[in-house]
Amino acid sequence: MTMRIDLNADLGESFGTWVLGDDEAMLDVVTSANVACGFHAGDATTIRRTVAAAAERGVVVGAQVGYRDLAGFGRRRIDMDAADLTADVLYQLGALEAMCRVAGTRVAYVKPHGALYTTAAVDEVQAGAVVDAVAAYDPSLPLLGQPGSVLLQVASSAGLPVVGEAFADRGYAADGRLVPRSHPQALLHDPDEVAERVLRIASEGTLLAVDGTLIAVPARSVCTHGDTPGAVGLARAVRAKLEAAGVTITPFVRSGP
Amino acid sequence: MTMRIDLNADLGESFGTWVLGDDEAMLDVVTSANVACGFHAGDATTIRRTVAAAAERGVVVGAQVGYRDLAGFGRRRIDMDAADLTADVLYQLGALEAMCRVAGTRVAYVKPHGALYTTAAVDEVQAGAVVDAVAAYDPSLPLLGQPGSVLLQVASSAGLPVVGEAFADRGYAADGRLVPRSHPQALLHDPDEVAERVLRIASEGTLLAVDGTLIAVPARSVCTHGDTPGAVGLARAVRAKLEAAGVTITPFVRSGP
Amino acid sequence: MTMRIDLNADLGESFGTWVLGDDEAMLDVVTSANVACGFHAGDATTIRRTVAAAAERGVVVGAQVGYRDLAGFGRRRIDMDAADLTADVLYQLGALEAMCRVAGTRVAYVKPHGALYTTAAVDEVQAGAVVDAVAAYDPSLPLLGQPGSVLLQVASSAGLPVVGEAFADRGYAADGRLVPRSHPQALLHDPDEVAERVLRIASEGTLLAVDGTLIAVPARSVCTHGDTPGAVGLARAVRAKLEAAGVTITPFVRSGP
Amino acid sequence: MTMRIDLNADLGESFGTWVLGDDEAMLDVVTSANVACGFHAGDATTIRRTVAAAAERGVVVGAQVGYRDLAGFGRRRIDMDAADLTADVLYQLGALEAMCRVAGTRVAYVKPHGALYTTAAVDEVQAGAVVDAVAAYDPSLPLLGQPGSVLLQVASSAGLPVVGEAFADRGYAADGRLVPRSHPQALLHDPDEVAERVLRIASEGTLLAVDGTLIAVPARSVCTHGDTPGAVGLARAVRAKLEAAGVTITPFVRSGP
Repeated sequence: MTMRIDLNADLGESFGTWVLGDDEAMLDVVTSANVACGFHAGDATTIRRTVAAAAERGVVVGAQVGYRDLAGFGRRRIDMDAADLTADVLYQLGALEAMCRVAGTRVAYVKPHGALYTTAAVDEVQAGAVVDAVAAYDPSLPLLGQPGSVLLQVASSAGLPVVGEAFADRGYAADGRLVPRSHPQALLHDPDEVAERVLRIASEGTLLAVDGTLIAVPARSVCTHGDTPGAVGLARAVRAKLEAAGVTITPFVRSGP
Repeated sequence: MTMRIDLNADLGESFGTWVLGDDEAMLDVVTSANVACGFHAGDATTIRRTVAAAAERGVVVGAQVGYRDLAGFGRRRIDMDAADLTADVLYQLGALEAMCRVAGTRVAYVKPHGALYTTAAVDEVQAGAVVDAVAAYDPSLPLLGQPGSVLLQVASSAGLPVVGEAFADRGYAADGRLVPRSHPQALLHDPDEVAERVLRIASEGTLLAVDGTLIAVPARSVCTHGDTPGAVGLARAVRAKLEAAGVTITPFVRSGP
Repeated sequence: MTMRIDLNADLGESFGTWVLGDDEAMLDVVTSANVACGFHAGDATTIRRTVAAAAERGVVVGAQVGYRDLAGFGRRRIDMDAADLTADVLYQLGALEAMCRVAGTRVAYVKPHGALYTTAAVDEVQAGAVVDAVAAYDPSLPLLGQPGSVLLQVASSAGLPVVGEAFADRGYAADGRLVPRSHPQALLHDPDEVAERVLRIASEGTLLAVDGTLIAVPARSVCTHGDTPGAVGLARAVRAKLEAAGVTITPFVRSGP
Repeated sequence: MTMRIDLNADLGESFGTWVLGDDEAMLDVVTSANVACGFHAGDATTIRRTVAAAAERGVVVGAQVGYRDLAGFGRRRIDMDAADLTADVLYQLGALEAMCRVAGTRVAYVKPHGALYTTAAVDEVQAGAVVDAVAAYDPSLPLLGQPGSVLLQVASSAGLPVVGEAFADRGYAADGRLVPRSHPQALLHDPDEVAERVLRIASEGTLLAVDGTLIAVPARSVCTHGDTPGAVGLARAVRAKLEAAGVTITPFVRSGP
């Protein structure tokens, strides 16, 4: 049986003159691009360029929707009314869709960004607001998120496809959650260790928590990072190791309708 | 032969807690709604609500694209790179389209707002940037603008449909341009006078300039305003007079594909 | 003994073309103006005009600092880092101070706006961040807030002067907190009732809670609202009644150093 | 006689998560820091940190005021009303002043940024708007700009001190203006050549235009850049060469009152 996994990364997060990450390099590594939609990052020119570069490479484009908070990069929870959040998500989906249309591709999935990701993972109101937007826009669009999160539960109940992801380079607690960034093992830096973990996720659906517990991680996609030069190298090493092990790196959804 | 004319107005220009105009009232008067797309005005909730209200009434939705300048309400010319302007227009088109999609309608035409309208009427670079966006997005979308403007010329050369509009309540010079706002006849306030003018535009395609010259105005749409209570009354009076005179008030493009 | 009370209101909350409230009218009623500083509302021109109008009338200017959230009008809690919030408050204080300087007045007190007001009333981290900003900027500046709030406690501990305020037209629970807006008595509309209440606050420092309990409200200032025409009339009626009853309407801090 | 020159650079131009330039490194080279004020760049935390770092080193802080255009980094001319521009400049001056106050320094001069710099160099309306703001705020504040520019002329007529600057690494035409960026000699890259030029500016007040003409450049300050690693090295080399030649690198204005 073939092992398959998708690699995703947050891209299109530059803004105007400010550059973040090496999108071109990462697009040669990943199979799914979570493209910023302008609210937490991503001016229109950046988004257009990123989507075009993804489309050229056959990388699938997903909408990385976030809070309207450039100064905070979408990393600060905002206590929004559900209706406003739904409208904000719709707005971002459409904006990205226009860039996809002119590049010959489409928005193929949705992944909340930053504090919206972590909030929607535990908060039914905000999860519901995101799900309402996606369901109204296109109920065939999968939501990409943490396995077991409230977001994926609410999405699933609403009839949306859901796809679980794992984090390649973050430490997990035995309960399946990420350990806080203050934890000494919060971040994995060794390419071999990271690649080994992703291989196990792809092959067995498990990983080792920081306390040594083997936990189940039902993930069809693995999130990598590209916002530092080291991160790009790490992502490349992971991909190479997976391919050497016979894992097929492939998107979880098609870019065509 | 039946006289036909479209009535358009700028709508969806509230922002968050700030309300501008009486959109509901105007949607009962006009046949085409130039809906703000979030760059010069219009938060996502306002846009969604406006589009839904338009769709309910069968009012056609157009994209009122503008400069990214909330503080200036898009009324200040910005010397943008053409590629950035094209991307900004695409972004706005898509954002509005998402609201249309969930309301069961579509973006059916494009009309630049404020300083982008006046700049694109004379500046080939900015006109070209707008046209590039529309052509890439959907070359069947008409551009609504001033007859004879650079924008409509460039759009026409690019193969886009173009629709000329006249201003119901603005004074015209003999050369077909609007007189400056400082001119004593810059604004018409008398409902009968305004209705009379619109009737002549619909029936003969002409209007009287401030110096008494009869000029040709090849307009299939007439722009009304609704951002003051008096303006709504004026628009209603114009519509009533037109209907009494047997003019069919009808959009210049269909809301369906 | 003379009864004295300050009347304050949120002003300068227009933004660009969007007008909110009748600042000129309210400046003829209140003695202290909580002027928006640009983050939740207030463009630079609006702020300058409001401060100049306040200075002309001898109305004291306070800094109505808020979250950086124009779309949400500062009414949505944002989970900010304390250091970022402190910097944001400093930035707003300085921006307003410049407008005061050129108008011949000064920032004489600080009152958080909207969700920052309600968050800092209960959250030590955000209260501390606001207090840190004020203490660093000018430790002689009073903080205006709800009596008994965490904000005033933290400010007091830090050596800042604090001033309690009461709400003229909001229903109180027996524990001294405002009842939720969904409560049938959440808002008082009758001018006589409101004026009677403010008179009692000024004379006895008490008010009647919605359940009839007489509670202590140690307030040297009373917050009025001016964002609707009716509200301006209410504020005028309150002022007239207070003056008729011999209450001196006077600011709690001087506009000069 | 001692040769003296000031070195200035644009700093504090990061925004939220986006980093631009190496401010710490440049603060060890320059004597005057043009600190962004939040409109074209610079969130409050970045500004506060930059000002504190400048104050620690005795580097003088100037206000790098710009257009309200984060997406365009203030590099796009905006056709603003003069009164709005004046208010925007005042707002920025005050915001920066607050950061200076808590760091024990002050805003000691003003230098417009980007498109506001180039516009105010030729446009009397925008130059006048900037000058009005500075004159109202503190008429003892020098304006830093291009010698002979409309900005400096208007400022001078208004009684403001003016200071001319030269660009260390930009090609000049024989008429004293910068050659366009498309010119093959638009940018100087060789540290020795740049240092040689700055030395001549400091010692003789002249430089060689791209056509070999020796032109007068009455500059008391030289603008360096730090937004690339190479630029920091260039600035360091310039400073070292100047010091080796006995030039005193010193600010043109004091950071104290």
